[in-house]
Amino acid sequence: MAKQDDDLRRVISHAKEYGYVFQSSEIYDGLSAVYDYAQNGVELKKNIREYWWKAMVQLNENIVGLDAAIFMHPTTWKASGHVDAFNDPLIDNKDSKKRYRADVLVEEYVAKIETKIEKEVAKAAKRFGDKFDKEQFLATNQRVVDYQEQATTILKRLGKSLEKEDLADVKKLIEELEIACPMSGSRNWTDVKQFNLMFGTKLGASADTATDLYLRPETAQGIFVNFLNVQKTGRMKIPFGIAQTGKAFRNEIVARQFIFRMREFEQMEMQFFIKPGTQKEWYEKWKENRLKWHLSLGMGEENYRFHNHEKLAHYADAAADIEFRFPFGFKELEGIHSRTDFDLSSHEKYSNKKLQYFDNDTRESYVPYVIETSIGLDRMFLSVFSNSLQEEELENGTTRTVLRLPAVLAPTKAAVLPLVKKDGLPEIARKIIADLKWDFNVAYDEKDAVGRRYRRQDAAGTPFCITVDHQTLEDDTVTLRHRDTMEQQRIKLAEVKSIIAQEVDMREWLQKI
Amino acid sequence: MAKQDDDLRRVISHAKEYGYVFQSSEIYDGLSAVYDYAQNGVELKKNIREYWWKAMVQLNENIVGLDAAIFMHPTTWKASGHVDAFNDPLIDNKDSKKRYRADVLVEEYVAKIETKIEKEVAKAAKRFGDKFDKEQFLATNQRVVDYQEQATTILKRLGKSLEKEDLADVKKLIEELEIACPMSGSRNWTDVKQFNLMFGTKLGASADTATDLYLRPETAQGIFVNFLNVQKTGRMKIPFGIAQTGKAFRNEIVARQFIFRMREFEQMEMQFFIKPGTQKEWYEKWKENRLKWHLSLGMGEENYRFHNHEKLAHYADAAADIEFRFPFGFKELEGIHSRTDFDLSSHEKYSNKKLQYFDNDTRESYVPYVIETSIGLDRMFLSVFSNSLQEEELENGTTRTVLRLPAVLAPTKAAVLPLVKKDGLPEIARKIIADLKWDFNVAYDEKDAVGRRYRRQDAAGTPFCITVDHQTLEDDTVTLRHRDTMEQQRIKLAEVKSIIAQEVDMREWLQKI
Repeated sequence: MAKQDDDLRRVISHAKEYGYVFQSSEIYDGLSAVYDYAQNGVELKKNIREYWWKAMVQLNENIVGLDAAIFMHPTTWKASGHVDAFNDPLIDNKDSKKRYRADVLVEEYVAKIETKIEKEVAKAAKRFGDKFDKEQFLATNQRVVDYQEQATTILKRLGKSLEKEDLADVKKLIEELEIACPMSGSRNWTDVKQFNLMFGTKLGASADTATDLYLRPETAQGIFVNFLNVQKTGRMKIPFGIAQTGKAFRNEIVARQFIFRMREFEQMEMQFFIKPGTQKEWYEKWKENRLKWHLSLGMGEENYRFHNHEKLAHYADAAADIEFRFPFGFKELEGIHSRTDFDLSSHEKYSNKKLQYFDNDTRESYVPYVIETSIGLDRMFLSVFSNSLQEEELENGTTRTVLRLPAVLAPTKAAVLPLVKKDGLPEIARKIIADLKWDFNVAYDEKDAVGRRYRRQDAAGTPFCITVDHQTLEDDTVTLRHRDTMEQQRIKLAEVKSIIAQEVDMREWLQKI
Repeated sequence: MAKQDDDLRRVISHAKEYGYVFQSSEIYDGLSAVYDYAQNGVELKKNIREYWWKAMVQLNENIVGLDAAIFMHPTTWKASGHVDAFNDPLIDNKDSKKRYRADVLVEEYVAKIETKIEKEVAKAAKRFGDKFDKEQFLATNQRVVDYQEQATTILKRLGKSLEKEDLADVKKLIEELEIACPMSGSRNWTDVKQFNLMFGTKLGASADTATDLYLRPETAQGIFVNFLNVQKTGRMKIPFGIAQTGKAFRNEIVARQFIFRMREFEQMEMQFFIKPGTQKEWYEKWKENRLKWHLSLGMGEENYRFHNHEKLAHYADAAADIEFRFPFGFKELEGIHSRTDFDLSSHEKYSNKKLQYFDNDTRESYVPYVIETSIGLDRMFLSVFSNSLQEEELENGTTRTVLRLPAVLAPTKAAVLPLVKKDGLPEIARKIIADLKWDFNVAYDEKDAVGRRYRRQDAAGTPFCITVDHQTLEDDTVTLRHRDTMEQQRIKLAEVKSIIAQEVDMREWLQKI
């Protein structure tokens, strides 16, 4: 745990120092769980967004884009279930004035029981050595069996009470288990109340004529309500997809872990409309397809895994997460959901408008089924950034900090460095920049010794440095220095652009897998 | 007026029919003054944003980007003046229940007086013919002099009352002028009240612990509060700029004219930090620079003009608009403002943090002055779209609808059309697409006669069509058809990519001016 905290702290401080992520409104002591992307962060974020858009929209003839507004008609959120069901059950401790998710308090209690079981297992394994049979032990050791039963009983009751919205029983459960406030140790609890996670606002001039609006908690509904307009004006044939990136907002009680869970965040979602009955096949295809996209970035196959959901949301008939190894463990990075016709049918009901697709070949009309792929752009940013930040022992005993961002995503592709600030070298460097900058982001750096400049660019994530020296004056060659290997190559000036362009070309990267 | 309404109506209906802009939440009968960008609109919007970003950030070594959150610490809006001064004075008619901006009611009254003056002038000009001297007439005709005096007196009084926040006098003025509700003719008015244009929301779980937040009404403040963090971590030297694109929100009472004035909109703003005393020079430079950017799109120099502000906002010492000829006349497209040190100094005061730049060469510290360039992305979209939509008489007497979008901004760069759906032509078309799609957006279209497909692509704004026919099978050539001239060229398959790439290359366009 301490190591994980350390890792995350190192990520946060590097992100600030190198202009990737700042705390929002820092001069006013910040705004909880809101962050700003700084001069390098905005470019990394743009590049990730573009890498996704290219793979999803530009390369797929049957997927088109959309940019729906954050404000939507409020009935949208009745139809989607968010007004009634997008709640967290909250409880306050009267002494500490701290607020918790009631279900999380109970789940943490159960987690402690499970820790006890694991300890018993570990002890027994040590005692019995080779002869230890875990399954048998779990089934026969009375203490362990009791623990297991206790855990199961608690979780069942919690699940049932939440399902029936019997919040009084959730409170009773907390009291019976004698769960105390983790901050104060007090057991003096308020009632449990449902709290809706959507941010509200009012549209219009005065309180009496105003319309209650929500800030969208997901971008998906913007796609559903526009589904038929896109299909008709775009002459789309099923199967086809609509993709969208944009901000969403959730009034999370416990927002934390840097940009992993924020109250304002950006989603990249694609809804794929299919014929009912084909959902299993498409669900599997999209799981595979999306994992391939992640792997194309070369951040290590061992850092990804699927987590198939057993407990399904009300709209889904299958769901899986692609999890990534964050500094705080494996966590959801992307979700792939088989949403059936839940959303479209519900919008039909609430709007009283037909949302059916007419198949010209078979002459039949139907409400399509939907496979959704949904990824948090900020999470993706954190996965790329945290995985790339490395401390490296060098042969000479020193360490270097290097941000090994995939070159295709790096904010600055190359830094151009004149070896010294005289003899016309800065002028040549500027001339190189004047040409390269049309194709990608380049930086100029003339301050400090060149070795120090290399290290600065390593830490900032710049994959290439181009050094102009006195030999350049004689034979039009420069040094190309690679961030990851620290290798230095002498190349002709005329080759610089094409070499780097090849290394950062999305086509090259997306075709790797 | 009727012609203007017609033109705008034609733009709105074409934008829907060809998948550019849909009314938001249309299935729920829409949400007033909110729109969604459809499959082609999202690409046009992305391309405009990218054209701006490239010109402002990528090409300028001393301008960097930023992506600050929509949520900011609420004190930000005290410091910026928005909490106290971002108001409209509103008045309700008690009979019609309609709400108006009180100042607009008075200004419309004055506009009617001005119409009377113009009529007198026109009458006199007709009467006197060649001998008519307008200046002399205006100065000597008693009726006209009275009108002028009346108009001046009213506007002066309105200005003074608003400045003093004497809203009772604004109401008195409306009553004295006997202004009636345009809807009902009633003169039964409520008091005038100030109404803040910011959308509010609450952060946090319960009413008693919640923080009142605003949705940002402009992106600029996100740049100001991050100014020193960007300057230090980016090692920026004055003069330098910070650029940002992003959503902003204003609870406009009278939002109208399609996407020209929306409640949710996107800004592209750049704040340029300079040494106090140099603001005049930089203000002029940025006016020129920004106009050049607009002109590079080739939409006609006669469609732009500067409007220099005489009445300045509280934060400005000079301000000008670049106006564009919209379907409803010349209106603001972009603003260039010399904001002095108003914002940074105010944030210093409210945050109690120093926001000073330290000049390493002169060893002095100071609060920089700021020149701002601010453009509405949605307005820019409307300017490009409305100007491009043309009905054209052809030689054969028919008309064609063509959307002459600058090729660099067009959503789809080329459509690939097999002449017929057999003989292997579709397969060749697909092969062409498989290669081109890595570089730009391309579409496939095989339905209907090729002439009809050309017209469809004309109306959708696609600058090039590539037609595959039987000759292609023999000699590897295709027809390249140009949207604007309808010219058809026979070219080698191998040349297709480089010809189109050149025509849509941002470098080529930005270097035109």
